[in-house]
Amino acid sequence: MSNTVIIGIEEARSLCCGAFIAAGASAHNAAATAGALVRAEADGQRGHGLSRVPSYAAQVKTGKVDGRVQPRLEDARPGLFRVDAGHGFAYPAIQLALPELTSRARALGIAAAAVYRSHHFGVAGHHCEDLARQGLIAFVYGNTPKAIAPFGAREKVLGTNPVAFAAPYEPDPLVIDFALSVVARGKINAARQAGKSIPEGWALGPDGVATTDPEIALQGSMLPIGGVKGAALALMIEVMSACLAGSALSAEAPSLFDGEGDPPSLGQVILAIDAQALSGGRFAGRIRDLAALYAELEGARFPGTGRLGQRQRSEERGLEVPVSLIEEIRALL
Amino acid sequence: MSNTVIIGIEEARSLCCGAFIAAGASAHNAAATAGALVRAEADGQRGHGLSRVPSYAAQVKTGKVDGRVQPRLEDARPGLFRVDAGHGFAYPAIQLALPELTSRARALGIAAAAVYRSHHFGVAGHHCEDLARQGLIAFVYGNTPKAIAPFGAREKVLGTNPVAFAAPYEPDPLVIDFALSVVARGKINAARQAGKSIPEGWALGPDGVATTDPEIALQGSMLPIGGVKGAALALMIEVMSACLAGSALSAEAPSLFDGEGDPPSLGQVILAIDAQALSGGRFAGRIRDLAALYAELEGARFPGTGRLGQRQRSEERGLEVPVSLIEEIRALL
Repeated sequence: MSNTVIIGIEEARSLCCGAFIAAGASAHNAAATAGALVRAEADGQRGHGLSRVPSYAAQVKTGKVDGRVQPRLEDARPGLFRVDAGHGFAYPAIQLALPELTSRARALGIAAAAVYRSHHFGVAGHHCEDLARQGLIAFVYGNTPKAIAPFGAREKVLGTNPVAFAAPYEPDPLVIDFALSVVARGKINAARQAGKSIPEGWALGPDGVATTDPEIALQGSMLPIGGVKGAALALMIEVMSACLAGSALSAEAPSLFDGEGDPPSLGQVILAIDAQALSGGRFAGRIRDLAALYAELEGARFPGTGRLGQRQRSEERGLEVPVSLIEEIRALL
Repeated sequence: MSNTVIIGIEEARSLCCGAFIAAGASAHNAAATAGALVRAEADGQRGHGLSRVPSYAAQVKTGKVDGRVQPRLEDARPGLFRVDAGHGFAYPAIQLALPELTSRARALGIAAAAVYRSHHFGVAGHHCEDLARQGLIAFVYGNTPKAIAPFGAREKVLGTNPVAFAAPYEPDPLVIDFALSVVARGKINAARQAGKSIPEGWALGPDGVATTDPEIALQGSMLPIGGVKGAALALMIEVMSACLAGSALSAEAPSLFDGEGDPPSLGQVILAIDAQALSGGRFAGRIRDLAALYAELEGARFPGTGRLGQRQRSEERGLEVPVSLIEEIRALL
């Protein structure tokens, strides 16, 4: 990358935090949100990192995101609770949910939280990773504004609907985290900016026909992995997030990228299961055996290890960020 | 289909039941297993239907399946319990688990069961469907003997690892149920028998290179949907079934199709969540809104409706089964 600057993790955090406070967010919400974005950036997940700061700040300014709201925990059943994110950022709501989820899952063996009136929830794998470090298997389901058409149809209904999963494993949890589109929309945007065509199989045009033109693809829909099976998985995640949280459907949610329109009111559902308890004490041994099979095979990699290397490099050397982005964030202060 | 015969559902059930009893199974286990296979056949899921009867009976005869064992329920936590299938058929164990799971999920809002020392669990969607008819969101995760290589590797480690999901919806639940291989192994077998080649993208040869030769494909590995993402999903399901049930890994499990070798000792994990409770009473309305979006779109179909049509036809007209299969089953009596 040319025209980049190295910025320390602490410095990045206070820079982002300052931008959100200047936009009108409370100190608590600004810190939670800045922490999540910097953590994403440090792991190499730039699409959920500092690049979000300007649009997040814009949304606080216009009131599309309530930067001052305090998320509220609502009890539902011994093993279930809800968190009203109050049209604020998702991170303070998830931060409230995780310790409560941990304590209920420890007591009962399993628990679930539904976050509603929520927003972009960043790297879903991070929330799962935090729970897995507590000995819990974790799932996060969340919906996103519409991008994928139901199989056989032309019109977008489903989000790219990320799914994240983590399981306790030493020294670091197994983390699986991806969206159900073949590629992120950002890749198509990048091809358009570079004036390049995209491979067939990434997207359909608005007429439902496969396209290699990024311009047409952006007007159409993203293709899910695995054809009919991936489209069904995207639907499953829509049900597990929007329907189960009682939130907006992906088809109803406005953009997460600008300050225009209503709050997106997305939903996230988080599950936690005590792995050792359900397995009769066998989980830790069995996942070690499984990882050992991967370690023996040439070419195989237990997922999630790549980002740990990136994380360590970021901690040692700081974050390498485009100068233009840092300037854009500084201008918000 | 040529050389088929129509057989009534009740008649099919007692025929299969008789074959298992003749092989040495208890009346209870024979009835549970026969019921599940006939239900699969009635839904058009032939790979999990009557075609399994001869190999199931052979496994009872050699003791690879303990046909007389009574599955045992073991408490773990308020929201978790285990079922020891005792190297018997999976169905009596799952039949024991479902009502207990329902009552715990109603009381706590969420619950999970792990079935271990288990066997082939048939149509995973049926177990989920039963829970969804009780108002519960349900997941079933199960592993199967190895068939899929980790992404980038040559050697099989993971099963085709089906995932099933159902959600309450009127008049019939939404059911999503599929394996993570691009196609079932049976399709490759069928191509070999017909002397035809298979499309690229179904399987790899033992050298890890894509093949269109069914003979070589059967010695190699099945490709997962969606490349690296599907391989990660297959791993996730391996962790959610084998590791979380404390059972055999897919790489350790012998065939489910013959009487040779040790019991497969597979694992299944079943989750149940009270959908209305977690959604603050909004689930039923939201899934109706989502289904309405599908209904408006040309070409889109809410999954699971196809098999309901097949089920109704089977109930009205009986099952159309190859004569040779019925003769093979009759010979077991």
